Amino acid sequence: MTDVLRPGEAARVAGMDEAVSLDELRLAARNHGMPLEALRMDLTPTGLHYLLVHYDIPFLDPATWRLELGGHVATPLSLDLAALRERPRVSHTVTLECAGNGRARLLPRPVSQPWLDEAVGTAEWTGCSLASLLEEAGVREGAVDVSFTGHDHGTERGVEQDYCRALSLSDAVAGDVLVAYEMNGAPLPPQHGAPVRLIVPGWYGMAHVKWLRTITVLAEEFTGFQNDVAYRLRADADDPGEPVSRIQPRALVVPPGFPDFMTRRRVVDAGPVELFGRAWSGRSPVSRVELSVDDGLTWTEADLGAAASRYAWRPWTFTWDALPGDYTLCVRAADGDGTQPVDQPWNMQGMANNMTQRVPVTVR
Amino acid sequence: MTDVLRPGEAARVAGMDEAVSLDELRLAARNHGMPLEALRMDLTPTGLHYLLVHYDIPFLDPATWRLELGGHVATPLSLDLAALRERPRVSHTVTLECAGNGRARLLPRPVSQPWLDEAVGTAEWTGCSLASLLEEAGVREGAVDVSFTGHDHGTERGVEQDYCRALSLSDAVAGDVLVAYEMNGAPLPPQHGAPVRLIVPGWYGMAHVKWLRTITVLAEEFTGFQNDVAYRLRADADDPGEPVSRIQPRALVVPPGFPDFMTRRRVVDAGPVELFGRAWSGRSPVSRVELSVDDGLTWTEADLGAAASRYAWRPWTFTWDALPGDYTLCVRAADGDGTQPVDQPWNMQGMANNMTQRVPVTVR
Repeated sequence: MTDVLRPGEAARVAGMDEAVSLDELRLAARNHGMPLEALRMDLTPTGLHYLLVHYDIPFLDPATWRLELGGHVATPLSLDLAALRERPRVSHTVTLECAGNGRARLLPRPVSQPWLDEAVGTAEWTGCSLASLLEEAGVREGAVDVSFTGHDHGTERGVEQDYCRALSLSDAVAGDVLVAYEMNGAPLPPQHGAPVRLIVPGWYGMAHVKWLRTITVLAEEFTGFQNDVAYRLRADADDPGEPVSRIQPRALVVPPGFPDFMTRRRVVDAGPVELFGRAWSGRSPVSRVELSVDDGLTWTEADLGAAASRYAWRPWTFTWDALPGDYTLCVRAADGDGTQPVDQPWNMQGMANNMTQRVPVTVR
Repeated sequence: MTDVLRPGEAARVAGMDEAVSLDELRLAARNHGMPLEALRMDLTPTGLHYLLVHYDIPFLDPATWRLELGGHVATPLSLDLAALRERPRVSHTVTLECAGNGRARLLPRPVSQPWLDEAVGTAEWTGCSLASLLEEAGVREGAVDVSFTGHDHGTERGVEQDYCRALSLSDAVAGDVLVAYEMNGAPLPPQHGAPVRLIVPGWYGMAHVKWLRTITVLAEEFTGFQNDVAYRLRADADDPGEPVSRIQPRALVVPPGFPDFMTRRRVVDAGPVELFGRAWSGRSPVSRVELSVDDGLTWTEADLGAAASRYAWRPWTFTWDALPGDYTLCVRAADGDGTQPVDQPWNMQGMANNMTQRVPVTVR
């Protein structure tokens, strides 16, 4: 039941018939997805935005918090919250998704936080530009990567660590990366990284380091656990795998009608049903959303609306002329680089999985 | 997997070896508990407070929302939000707990929202006194119960319904029941009942009807699903059972040290460890908290602090002189009516379960 892994051990994959364990349930009770009816809102309110905390939430005092920016730079910076707030304010509306979204729908199931479809949310994040802070510090010739360390501390597969992730220098200075202190116009709530976190538009959640304390410019490649071990697309335990980076395209539909409490199965009245949802991609803009009411056999294009920003999800609508019967709705997004798969893109840790959502519906 | 129940069918109890189902996981991914490190805060911030939504979150327009108060009264009231806000403001700090808290730790496990220990939170709620609204409407002679109907709609064990619960008239006019429009000083967030919900201090969560639309004074006993079928303490499927009402005493400890990501098992450094937690009861004030580091074999009294209000949890502290080894911490609360049990108080639906928390800890 409590299989603490030793250093170097791979993440576990459940047996084909193995049900959800108490360990997985314990994570599901702490972390949470966005109830899909909240897709209706452009900005996800605090408390509905998905949340994944690797270890414990640190409760930090904003009055004594400091950010140290050092390493391979000309002038290391040590900034308190007031110093960050004095610098030019930048805001971006960003759709954020957990790299493990969809994991618990895979067969066999990688054992970790057991997300279904709902590990997503969109918020307006405000802070300083990371590029401008790096410019201020003066990145020295020969810099390769930039690492970001948080205050949260724990053990993962036998490795004790403060949560730490790195970006290449080119990813760190491009793409509107923010050192953020506000979410939806209010100071960050504790669970979303108070007082300060990283926001890396277009990337899966693991890059957006929360409870940020240190930024270090490195003259060599970063080899920390979260980049080299945890967030990799591995075919098997021996595969070093490719790193997880930008968000794959995904569309979701607000489940129509009303649910059964226990099964969440939907009931809809016959007639025209206005389906509504969102679609996003961190690779390139979403260009098409298609809907299927026959479990992916046939597809029809939905009407795409405009995104609030280049990093935010796009709304889409589709009118379904629903006749009595049982249906499985599917929805898929495409961007300039391809279309979301109907079948599962499996990997050892269930990362960057974007298999299409399936919503069973009874029309009465 | 998707066992939709027919009207009248009882809730299901899992087999002794049956693991968590996809249905249960689906509920756990939507609803969420309070990460236990948030016990440190007197008031639980939005997004960390536990959340249980029976059906879907309705997104209501506060500008057009109305509350109808009618039935067995002299003068029915129809109030918009501005009319509610014009009436005297009352605030209470209230600890709220789901009646199903602890359910997934029971053996055998009742199949429903699979809470472990964390379905709790404390907030300051502000609104109008229900008693004063009832007085204004003029409750007529012969009134027995008062029912509260929300906007959320769904099916539960085959019964289609808007969520509706009743209190006896005497419970409705006593105990500082609020028709609340603010949580922690801000308008209610959508998931906590916006724009208006009921707050029934001291009672489990099922009584605090969210997305309130109708209050009806009844001249006969209420026999709706949520009172007569759902929230009952049944020994077996044939037992009509007692209704679930006030919160049983419970204490929780902030798990000390740091966790392993997957198992949440704790590691603590040897030496004095300051344990901190909270204890509450809806029956009568918490009078004692005891701690055990040997899985309930021996107990020592903790230091109890003052509650923020008569309806809020009390903080407690305990200094543990931790020596290297493996331990199971337990904590239990007592009120004027008795002590929290170490063994499971089992019933068919896992309601009002207050078995003591167990926290496995390795001291190094």
